[in-house]
Amino acid sequence: MAFEYEINPQAIEKDSFRQIRKLTELSHFDREQQQVVMRIVHSLGMPELAEQVRFSKNACESGMAALAEECEILCDVEMVRQGITKRMISRLPSCYLNDPRTVELAKETGETRSMAAVELWRESLAGSVVVIGNAPTALFRLLEMIEKGAGKPALIIGMPVGFVGAAESKQALWDVHEQLGIECITLLGRQGGSAVSAASCNALLRCNRGEYY
Amino acid sequence: MAFEYEINPQAIEKDSFRQIRKLTELSHFDREQQQVVMRIVHSLGMPELAEQVRFSKNACESGMAALAEECEILCDVEMVRQGITKRMISRLPSCYLNDPRTVELAKETGETRSMAAVELWRESLAGSVVVIGNAPTALFRLLEMIEKGAGKPALIIGMPVGFVGAAESKQALWDVHEQLGIECITLLGRQGGSAVSAASCNALLRCNRGEYY
Repeated sequence: MAFEYEINPQAIEKDSFRQIRKLTELSHFDREQQQVVMRIVHSLGMPELAEQVRFSKNACESGMAALAEECEILCDVEMVRQGITKRMISRLPSCYLNDPRTVELAKETGETRSMAAVELWRESLAGSVVVIGNAPTALFRLLEMIEKGAGKPALIIGMPVGFVGAAESKQALWDVHEQLGIECITLLGRQGGSAVSAASCNALLRCNRGEYY
Repeated sequence: MAFEYEINPQAIEKDSFRQIRKLTELSHFDREQQQVVMRIVHSLGMPELAEQVRFSKNACESGMAALAEECEILCDVEMVRQGITKRMISRLPSCYLNDPRTVELAKETGETRSMAAVELWRESLAGSVVVIGNAPTALFRLLEMIEKGAGKPALIIGMPVGFVGAAESKQALWDVHEQLGIECITLLGRQGGSAVSAASCNALLRCNRGEYY
């Protein structure tokens, strides 16, 4: 029993992105968008996901500028927070899902903890980068708050996953982003998750450091 | 601008699993296997993934028994560790990816940190539940260690993701598990990740509590 496999991390990464470039339709994306799309494809092992990615007009620029200024990064779940590469940030991302105030609020209202937690983002929203990788209700609630006048994030990475509300919440984000005047990156359809959403943020952090693949 | 969406967490979960049952081919899986497959489908929003899931003969039983005894849960990356539902375990999962010994060892050998970290599992392997959601090299190294006589986990949940070695490492696990005498759950092909692997472990923890969907 002998296994042959590459053990050098740089060689693995290089070969991964070589394969992704070969297998993924990237020609209609600009340079930074390509980096985000490749990271999404990388994190789920699915080149075909590229077709479902949408960028608002200045999404990458706005997100990169905010991240360069060490903006707040607001995450819906702990797995997303864990997925943001720590060596590229000086300020830890925030997640209020397990905050006692969130638990209390969700009990009171009977709504999901994920959407209750978004209430605790209110003071930090303006100029932030929001990364939603799990909860459709968090994305819907965020859109409602912005419509009612809450501060606008520099970028919303909205990629909840699942069968109830996920596709709908991302379509809603895409449909209303111009009207609300917000920048966003989303992955239409049911697919999404903490890995793809964190990977999208990581791609922008890498662009800021000049690490292009 | 008004969004209509379900905000009740129990209703969301119930409807999710109702849809998953309807959309997923589950008939050839037994009761516990179905729970695992549904959690995998749930975590990536993809019913078609059911076709790629493989269980060794006593995988669920062996994993559930070990988890019921509060066995060690060994994770390849922090996102997997974060993904194991805390309310269902009394002992936190372990991950040595950022352990100084791992960093040192990987530097010495020029191999990935993920596979270096597996060295630190050695004393805990026997009877553990191993959850690999990211690194093919970790899975290959684990198989090599077991072949050379390291302790056997009660269950290996092997679901690394990506383009270099991921599909190969899972195929290897599936091909050699009988010969090595190990129980495993895997997701063949490129897809995988921290979400599906943690979800598989969570499904078994739920079965132990009688929480079936």
